[in-house]
Amino acid sequence: MSFQLPAYIPPDFNRPVFSAAPTVAFKPVVQSGVAPENYHGTSIYPEYFQVRKNEWRLLTESRMDCVVVLNPDGSLQVTEFRRLKKGDPVACGRKENGEEGIFVHQDAFSFPHRTDDKFVFRSQRTRETSFSIDYDELYGLLNHERRHGFIVWVLGPAAAFDHDSRLAFTALIESGYVHALLAGNALATHDVEGALFGTALGQELYSKRRVILGHYKHLDAINAIRSAGSIANAVSRGLVSGGIMHAAIQMGIPLVLAGSIRDDGPMPEVIGDVYRAQDEMRALTRRATTVIALATQLHAIAAGNLLPSYTVKDDRIRPVYFYMVDMSEYAVSKLSDRGSLTARSILTNVQDFVVTVERGLRERREACRCGPSAEAFSGA
Amino acid sequence: MSFQLPAYIPPDFNRPVFSAAPTVAFKPVVQSGVAPENYHGTSIYPEYFQVRKNEWRLLTESRMDCVVVLNPDGSLQVTEFRRLKKGDPVACGRKENGEEGIFVHQDAFSFPHRTDDKFVFRSQRTRETSFSIDYDELYGLLNHERRHGFIVWVLGPAAAFDHDSRLAFTALIESGYVHALLAGNALATHDVEGALFGTALGQELYSKRRVILGHYKHLDAINAIRSAGSIANAVSRGLVSGGIMHAAIQMGIPLVLAGSIRDDGPMPEVIGDVYRAQDEMRALTRRATTVIALATQLHAIAAGNLLPSYTVKDDRIRPVYFYMVDMSEYAVSKLSDRGSLTARSILTNVQDFVVTVERGLRERREACRCGPSAEAFSGA
Amino acid sequence: MSFQLPAYIPPDFNRPVFSAAPTVAFKPVVQSGVAPENYHGTSIYPEYFQVRKNEWRLLTESRMDCVVVLNPDGSLQVTEFRRLKKGDPVACGRKENGEEGIFVHQDAFSFPHRTDDKFVFRSQRTRETSFSIDYDELYGLLNHERRHGFIVWVLGPAAAFDHDSRLAFTALIESGYVHALLAGNALATHDVEGALFGTALGQELYSKRRVILGHYKHLDAINAIRSAGSIANAVSRGLVSGGIMHAAIQMGIPLVLAGSIRDDGPMPEVIGDVYRAQDEMRALTRRATTVIALATQLHAIAAGNLLPSYTVKDDRIRPVYFYMVDMSEYAVSKLSDRGSLTARSILTNVQDFVVTVERGLRERREACRCGPSAEAFSGA
Amino acid sequence: MSFQLPAYIPPDFNRPVFSAAPTVAFKPVVQSGVAPENYHGTSIYPEYFQVRKNEWRLLTESRMDCVVVLNPDGSLQVTEFRRLKKGDPVACGRKENGEEGIFVHQDAFSFPHRTDDKFVFRSQRTRETSFSIDYDELYGLLNHERRHGFIVWVLGPAAAFDHDSRLAFTALIESGYVHALLAGNALATHDVEGALFGTALGQELYSKRRVILGHYKHLDAINAIRSAGSIANAVSRGLVSGGIMHAAIQMGIPLVLAGSIRDDGPMPEVIGDVYRAQDEMRALTRRATTVIALATQLHAIAAGNLLPSYTVKDDRIRPVYFYMVDMSEYAVSKLSDRGSLTARSILTNVQDFVVTVERGLRERREACRCGPSAEAFSGA
Repeated sequence: MSFQLPAYIPPDFNRPVFSAAPTVAFKPVVQSGVAPENYHGTSIYPEYFQVRKNEWRLLTESRMDCVVVLNPDGSLQVTEFRRLKKGDPVACGRKENGEEGIFVHQDAFSFPHRTDDKFVFRSQRTRETSFSIDYDELYGLLNHERRHGFIVWVLGPAAAFDHDSRLAFTALIESGYVHALLAGNALATHDVEGALFGTALGQELYSKRRVILGHYKHLDAINAIRSAGSIANAVSRGLVSGGIMHAAIQMGIPLVLAGSIRDDGPMPEVIGDVYRAQDEMRALTRRATTVIALATQLHAIAAGNLLPSYTVKDDRIRPVYFYMVDMSEYAVSKLSDRGSLTARSILTNVQDFVVTVERGLRERREACRCGPSAEAFSGA
Repeated sequence: MSFQLPAYIPPDFNRPVFSAAPTVAFKPVVQSGVAPENYHGTSIYPEYFQVRKNEWRLLTESRMDCVVVLNPDGSLQVTEFRRLKKGDPVACGRKENGEEGIFVHQDAFSFPHRTDDKFVFRSQRTRETSFSIDYDELYGLLNHERRHGFIVWVLGPAAAFDHDSRLAFTALIESGYVHALLAGNALATHDVEGALFGTALGQELYSKRRVILGHYKHLDAINAIRSAGSIANAVSRGLVSGGIMHAAIQMGIPLVLAGSIRDDGPMPEVIGDVYRAQDEMRALTRRATTVIALATQLHAIAAGNLLPSYTVKDDRIRPVYFYMVDMSEYAVSKLSDRGSLTARSILTNVQDFVVTVERGLRERREACRCGPSAEAFSGA
Repeated sequence: MSFQLPAYIPPDFNRPVFSAAPTVAFKPVVQSGVAPENYHGTSIYPEYFQVRKNEWRLLTESRMDCVVVLNPDGSLQVTEFRRLKKGDPVACGRKENGEEGIFVHQDAFSFPHRTDDKFVFRSQRTRETSFSIDYDELYGLLNHERRHGFIVWVLGPAAAFDHDSRLAFTALIESGYVHALLAGNALATHDVEGALFGTALGQELYSKRRVILGHYKHLDAINAIRSAGSIANAVSRGLVSGGIMHAAIQMGIPLVLAGSIRDDGPMPEVIGDVYRAQDEMRALTRRATTVIALATQLHAIAAGNLLPSYTVKDDRIRPVYFYMVDMSEYAVSKLSDRGSLTARSILTNVQDFVVTVERGLRERREACRCGPSAEAFSGA
Repeated sequence: MSFQLPAYIPPDFNRPVFSAAPTVAFKPVVQSGVAPENYHGTSIYPEYFQVRKNEWRLLTESRMDCVVVLNPDGSLQVTEFRRLKKGDPVACGRKENGEEGIFVHQDAFSFPHRTDDKFVFRSQRTRETSFSIDYDELYGLLNHERRHGFIVWVLGPAAAFDHDSRLAFTALIESGYVHALLAGNALATHDVEGALFGTALGQELYSKRRVILGHYKHLDAINAIRSAGSIANAVSRGLVSGGIMHAAIQMGIPLVLAGSIRDDGPMPEVIGDVYRAQDEMRALTRRATTVIALATQLHAIAAGNLLPSYTVKDDRIRPVYFYMVDMSEYAVSKLSDRGSLTARSILTNVQDFVVTVERGLRERREACRCGPSAEAFSGA
């Protein structure tokens, strides 16, 4: 299945509602960190602001539930409440249809091939929802994004507990399908415990045999890395010579490890201030074209909050795809509120998911290499 | 990983408790369908009854929560309460250590390779429990059982909803890994709907597009089969030319479709009397050496109730393996009461499980065929 | 909150589509148990059939996924496929808007008080959905139905495992809130085990202490009842002197215990043929005005399949309410397909639910008795 | 049920293993934040260290997975790895039986009344586990702790979404059952949204009707509080005049709101640095005698990590009770690793739990007030 980016359908600003619309009102921030009354809150959709008569400007690098600040240079910036400075001019107006100079563009893309996408995609997904087509579409998408997009993975620790899925995720990194990694202290700790001792929470990774003093292993792993100064140091010194962290660091993949109140340690790279961590995550999700969140409610919802449904890449407005893989209908129900055609959930165990995706991508690459169009991939 | 049957450790009946033990007491049934007081209820373990002094006889074809009847020919029969006839002699005694002539042999097998199996195996499994080794062991087991055992699959309808898993299960049947099939009306209906119309509950199997009048499709499927007289007739006439039912019938796989109060239709082969269905199921589980239950609580628990932890096959006492694959810790917690080393649960979506197992088995067969021992499989 | 039945909004059969419509076509059954081609399948909604020009007749005692047979006396009967006899005239036509003489009336009731019911009611419910109003509405509903309706409860075994909820459910029966009971062998067995031995699966009901030979208790309970001939006999002889079964039998509540392939025993009252059990269940759901299903997927879905969204009671067309109480979003997702304003799910543990509902109803009755309108209840 | 603290069973340090034991070895920290090799990691159990020959000193204010530092004044301090300073002497040794001068005392309390507590308590809990006795024991416990202990509640946002449970929790605060509160930005935001607008995520709290521009309500709530400077300011100015936050602040309950990467806003009181938040949480859990965690995996596990199974209160060594209330077996399985008799899970919806507990406690208080010992409570 060859992947095609859906075309963007620009709004027709010649329609009367737009012609009659005022320019958007900006009100100054009176108290830092507090938005003026009637502030406009952003959505996940492309939004246009009429900053000058007949000039409707698209928000770039948007984020849900933020406000829009007019920069001195005339550009628009999507900003968290906590970053507002006294005097910042904030876009005001809560109507979304243009009549206050603000237009939220909900059906912006021409998704191919499916006549009744809306119904099927927006209906509730359960463990019984079939997903063969989702895998195939994902292979097509990821093979496109590998060279033309920016794929951000959000990982819960479960991906590192299992022997096969840990190897498979490492292979995904090494084959170029991982452009950024968002995770927490637990993923790093369990993966490094695997690298140092071959165990996860004191059980041998593959055999699940408990080792002697196994309950010390995750603490020993943290202590060893703290002693080395960082995971990166431990990798460069050869202490950590395999696994997900090793591969990510060796490949130079940008990585945000966000702290949480559950953490032991923490690992040196973990960012203890969650709002700084959020900023670092957003620096990566701004560039994201596809995000895949595996078995973590906390980090998946956090990434979802940061992620618009569209982005501008190479001067083209395109969708941002968001996949959430989890075992529980409850967890993925959080995602369904996005109401977006580009958000999908797959209800399964991430161990199977990672192994299956890695194999599916590998097989398709190999099939291509054998065929006449192999050279098309030579630059990859 | 090459599979080896664990050795059976026979009880040492020379121990004093056994030497001092009486023969087991039998009391006659006074009222048909009712056991006499102090009846002995069977377990999943090998049980020995001292029917004559120094003759401890093993129960064969056992089943949990039943009673033991002495046949006129001196053999012992594990019988459901509802089958007791007035006058049947029923084994009595509730002590399990031999002192009433009854010995329940709980640690009967020498499981290889794992020093602390008990702890690891009996501890609670969750979605985070890694399962690479379980897949590998299962491949080894199934490749052994394919030729030397009797593999019974218990299927919920989810296995038939997904394009890839439906094909994969069909391939499992065709490659000889399925020796019997237990399911319900829903599995048969959805699979046949797929065969007749390419849909599952009115959505195209692969694309998930809703078809026109899709909500009629499962009724139309049932009606068509009822018109043909049976699924088997529909297969032989070429009406049903693919899918799980087709493959099972073509390969002559014994099949029990047990009715439930949820059923529409039902399909002609479905057995409406659940106790007769149970008997038919037990006729197959008596022969089972491995049972794999996928995404069905009702049928999985029913099969588990019928299944002892051991069987006698080719004059050898061997374990019966029981796998349960489900998405919910709650569902598989029902299994953990078995407390048996041969019962395992895998928490994942059966769609992934079936596809992964079929591929894993196929790859291992192909690897073998390339090697020097290929001829060993030529008869398979 | 005083409960009011929503008004029925009859279709306007003067509309052109109806005036122009033909009478409905009936085709005879050619093969018993098989519907003729193009048969009309029933829905949960009120359906009208134009049997003679300008005579649109409402289906009474409907049931989803069945067919409609014209009786010799000119009345219409909603019939399962399996009951069709050769020669039966079956209504044909799959258009639902009247143009084939068949009209499916989807928005039939004027639900009070809520402007945007549709959205709120039809959106997905999770464990985080608040339910204070649902309890209050349920109290109002049940106090109405207690005297003017027919309340059917569908019980999983969990309701009988807990000391408080078992007592509370018994109190609901004794106070007149239970007009029929649908359950399985497990509910009866665990409840009777409690009555005979004070245990549930061998643990003391309240203290949860395991008793000696506890694993025999459920078998002993079944055996004792089988010896007595029936639960009813055991109640009348005083063997079973408390609990849910006792209360139901003492109060003369109609009761269907449907068999399943999981059953031990079974209890004598259990109906082993599931299609006969379905018929017995439908005999009760025909009369139902409210159904409440607790912690049982099998029986809840079975009841839901039997249940239309409306009924005719005292010559009035009124909704049938259907509540499903379960711990899992997955389980209640099965209900959401009904797409009906009268179907609701509450995600909680039935132990809490039963205790809370019994207390809420009792407190409201007591509040009433203290007030001036106490006499209104004197006849209850 | 009147509650009694179980007696502490002190270790018998006259046993040979203790007499022969060396004093515990301390090694200095070489690199700040890094423990020396062979450091001893703490457990949840009472631990004794032989600091001088025949002087076995108990750890007070312990915490799992930390290290033990010898203070200059000779006292022992349980310290997180990240707080270690160069030169700190850290207790070393991984044997737990005393032979290295360290004794981990696992069965330290004489729990009353239950002969086979261990088995029952440690076995797996599911939604079907009955909990009448757990409620009753909890009432006894909380009525004791209200005056003699320190009760810490850990709250997920679900407790604030429901009209009745929000009122009930407020009543628990006002009646003295809440001595400290641990939560996150979401709980505070949804509760304050309720106080300011009567909504939760834009739906009216009780009726669940969506209000106009409802998706702005949580942002408006955060913005209003940020404008007021703090929730406390908003309470003192009368802006926030009801709900959980209001009650806690009015009663002077210590409160830690820990940040997470999911947060919008955040509310001013939220601590963005998770390790500082952890320290603030531990300042409260050090004093805790009972902790009850409701519907939050993140905060519940965090609290569990901070919490030992015992504490020293009024010179008495007593257990610390830990309850976790959640809908999912998976969530509470995280707790079962504690393997402690004082840790229990209740599988239900917290909405029901909070309402039930508040009513149960109130009824018992009222029953007491009517009786002769009413004055005993007059000072409460």
